[in-house]
Amino acid sequence: MARLKCVIAYDGIRFSGYQIQPNQRTVQGELEKALKYMHKNEGIRVTASGRTDAGVHAAGQVIHFDSPLTMPSENWRKALNTLLPDDISIKQVQSVADDFHARFDVTRKEYRYRILHRKESDIFRRFYTYHVPTYLDIEAMREAATYIIGTHDFSAFCAAGTKMIDKVRTVYDVRIEQQGDELVVAMIGSGFLYQMVRITVGNLLVVGEGKTTPLTIATILATKDRKKAFATAPPQGLYLWKVSYESLNAL
Amino acid sequence: MARLKCVIAYDGIRFSGYQIQPNQRTVQGELEKALKYMHKNEGIRVTASGRTDAGVHAAGQVIHFDSPLTMPSENWRKALNTLLPDDISIKQVQSVADDFHARFDVTRKEYRYRILHRKESDIFRRFYTYHVPTYLDIEAMREAATYIIGTHDFSAFCAAGTKMIDKVRTVYDVRIEQQGDELVVAMIGSGFLYQMVRITVGNLLVVGEGKTTPLTIATILATKDRKKAFATAPPQGLYLWKVSYESLNAL
Repeated sequence: MARLKCVIAYDGIRFSGYQIQPNQRTVQGELEKALKYMHKNEGIRVTASGRTDAGVHAAGQVIHFDSPLTMPSENWRKALNTLLPDDISIKQVQSVADDFHARFDVTRKEYRYRILHRKESDIFRRFYTYHVPTYLDIEAMREAATYIIGTHDFSAFCAAGTKMIDKVRTVYDVRIEQQGDELVVAMIGSGFLYQMVRITVGNLLVVGEGKTTPLTIATILATKDRKKAFATAPPQGLYLWKVSYESLNAL
Repeated sequence: MARLKCVIAYDGIRFSGYQIQPNQRTVQGELEKALKYMHKNEGIRVTASGRTDAGVHAAGQVIHFDSPLTMPSENWRKALNTLLPDDISIKQVQSVADDFHARFDVTRKEYRYRILHRKESDIFRRFYTYHVPTYLDIEAMREAATYIIGTHDFSAFCAAGTKMIDKVRTVYDVRIEQQGDELVVAMIGSGFLYQMVRITVGNLLVVGEGKTTPLTIATILATKDRKKAFATAPPQGLYLWKVSYESLNAL
């Protein structure tokens, strides 16, 4: 048995999220189906760095699995891409130590959120961006973002009903950059709570629209109360962009 | 009865082309369904500037229809967008003279073709670009394009089996521009034969890949024989970009 680490991309639109569920089309379900086929009907369990919600995309999700098959990484990549549907793409396959773990060994994650920031909607990006036609004060959003950076209890920015007890996370950076007609929010952290990025973006947008001050974001965070925060941004603008592992990747 | 002209966009992926066909999902079919609903079950026929194939997109298709209803253009736009599926968008509605004709009055059309020109594919643009990972000599493609510009018999660049007898068309311009990691071919002409843009792009790519010289394109065109031309580029990179009418639009 050898352990393999894969970097994968997927278009979240036609999936009921990453995690396997009965009678639903999921990314994990499709991956395990392809692996089962390659292993002559033997079930192979796939472990990801974390789940993503329905409609959320991944440009650099990381998974691992164990296999008795031996072949070069490039052959693995090609075989899996041949078997997988066109909305999942294996970008890289790498042989790793038996104790590598795609979830437990994560040292940092980067999410990106794409906002189509112009008056007209774009039918060709309706599944890949969130359209915000109103004026946005980007400097105010950047100021608000500074209150998010650092080690905080992010309870106020975590979807209600989350079972996770420890809600302290470290956000290393939040960058807001104009890229053509899009505004891209990149958020890098040690780990993220359920819907934390979408709630953060939703709150930054309220600041951008001038409906509240940047400092309010610090106040909301301090309440540790989800009910105090503003709305969650929709899933289609969100991308799990990169997952890093100290021992494997130079950061 | 008043005649209305609409500029519409659509995502071609889930349509069996523009033109209505029994038991197929088509753009015209969806438009006429929405209009029938607005007109209390009375059938309204829609006329477009021309058809587009399955998988081909439109950013600026033009249609016209006649209606006994009277309301401001903006209300028409909103009502139709509410009734139409999310892969058709009405960009503009305009009241026009009774003798305006979306097809017969066209003075020029612009098509664009988006080539994703980089090594890695992009799962998020698989329906919206044609991925060409190989080296392309853009200057050679631009030289080949100069042989396309002008008034020619485009029989060699028209899909076999086309019933149209007069295959002389005027191409005003072919521009090839780098936009980020995409190469965009814009083609402007008096009118286009069936698959003419996709065949042109397919041939320009053969030149770009260095498999033939730019001058070969002039030679192929002169044969007036489709069998002499190279392959047709796939539909998903193609956009009907703009349709112009001398009497209505400044060119």
